[in-house]
Amino acid sequence: MKNKKEIFASIIVIGNEILSGRTQDTNTSTLSIWLNSLGIKVQEVRTVPDLENIIIETVNELRQRYNYVFTTGGIGPTHDDITASSISKAFNLKYGPHKEAMAILEKYYKPGEFNEGRQKMAWMPSNANLILNPTSGAPGFNVENVFCLPGVPSILKSMLGGIKNKLVGGEPIISQTINLKTVESEISKSLSNVQDNNKDVDIGSYPFFRAGRLGVAIVLRSAKKSKIDKCSLEIIKFAKEKNIEIVEKD
Amino acid sequence: MKNKKEIFASIIVIGNEILSGRTQDTNTSTLSIWLNSLGIKVQEVRTVPDLENIIIETVNELRQRYNYVFTTGGIGPTHDDITASSISKAFNLKYGPHKEAMAILEKYYKPGEFNEGRQKMAWMPSNANLILNPTSGAPGFNVENVFCLPGVPSILKSMLGGIKNKLVGGEPIISQTINLKTVESEISKSLSNVQDNNKDVDIGSYPFFRAGRLGVAIVLRSAKKSKIDKCSLEIIKFAKEKNIEIVEKD
Repeated sequence: MKNKKEIFASIIVIGNEILSGRTQDTNTSTLSIWLNSLGIKVQEVRTVPDLENIIIETVNELRQRYNYVFTTGGIGPTHDDITASSISKAFNLKYGPHKEAMAILEKYYKPGEFNEGRQKMAWMPSNANLILNPTSGAPGFNVENVFCLPGVPSILKSMLGGIKNKLVGGEPIISQTINLKTVESEISKSLSNVQDNNKDVDIGSYPFFRAGRLGVAIVLRSAKKSKIDKCSLEIIKFAKEKNIEIVEKD
Repeated sequence: MKNKKEIFASIIVIGNEILSGRTQDTNTSTLSIWLNSLGIKVQEVRTVPDLENIIIETVNELRQRYNYVFTTGGIGPTHDDITASSISKAFNLKYGPHKEAMAILEKYYKPGEFNEGRQKMAWMPSNANLILNPTSGAPGFNVENVFCLPGVPSILKSMLGGIKNKLVGGEPIISQTINLKTVESEISKSLSNVQDNNKDVDIGSYPFFRAGRLGVAIVLRSAKKSKIDKCSLEIIKFAKEKNIEIVEKD
């Protein structure tokens, strides 16, 4: 049986506050887990500053390279929110008030409250498709395969439902974790043999220190449950041979 | 007075576990805050999978582009730890047992425990300079301007002290935050004017929702305290004119 084509995405985290360390990015993991469930694999994440030329260069490189690009941050009303204008330049599109977005925001705010700052949130590349925002009104947008979302994690999360139908995914990746009460160096050779026998399963090994206990989490990832099961049996087999306790398995 | 040359760094986070969303990266913010205190500005972060060609390409691009490159992850004993072999290829250096690292690890483990898996942690690019690891023995290393650190946050943190003397920083960036009880769209125009008047201060605006209160954190960043002070006064001035409460200032 032939595998369905793999679908890849990249994420561009836009914002000086992440690069300075002031703010801890959590959108990457939210987006990755969600995309994974749709059969879309995040292959690269780039965090870039609020600088137009860097945003344009990064968007133009990654939109050629991956099926989908997601940006987070920089779509608010202040001077440092330059995602929409940068995306316009990246695609050579006019940047201006977006009719549909203007109508949404005009309705969202009380009469007289739709001021200049708020109007800026309706400025977008011409022909952008809106991504509705059920939390705070101001929509995100997409141009071709580039989807622009806000940086505030709770608002970003609330907008994902509105994108789902715009994405074509592959086979969802299934993962299984086996936690062994051992250290990595005790199993590295056996695990390497299992990887050699199972080239189409991605096997990751991650040491952990939890509640005073040392262990290794072995994570198996593949689109095929049967391949994970085969791999899993081989790992359990060598663990038993080495008298290594299996702490938990999910 | 002429500014000291700006010093830029980039971070390469290596690991499928970050891209899958399984693990939340925190090393970026640890490294960014620390580098900032040395006057080194993190300008780009890339998260890449455990794939040799992507690691090599990314390292070779970024080491030309920035003064320093820091990698995190992929230096353990298992098959998915390919940072050291990839860096060797990126620099066209032989990959093999590093004498000094072998000696350190031989001493670290009990007799008979320095097995093949553990020996792998001493395989490095020839001529690599070691970065000592006070937590768990296995050292990191640097080749020219590329510094390779582990992915486990507590171990990474413990190794930073050993790098400090290898880095030449610029002027440390000072930051000041002013928290206003308002929303971004109420101040976006005034703030934009302040940014226009103070081009060499980086002004960021970040909405927050804390203990049920809405507000905007305005973050001023510059190497010059006097420039931050001037900017800060202009912000306090317009806040007072608009009857906006200043919640806190640091």
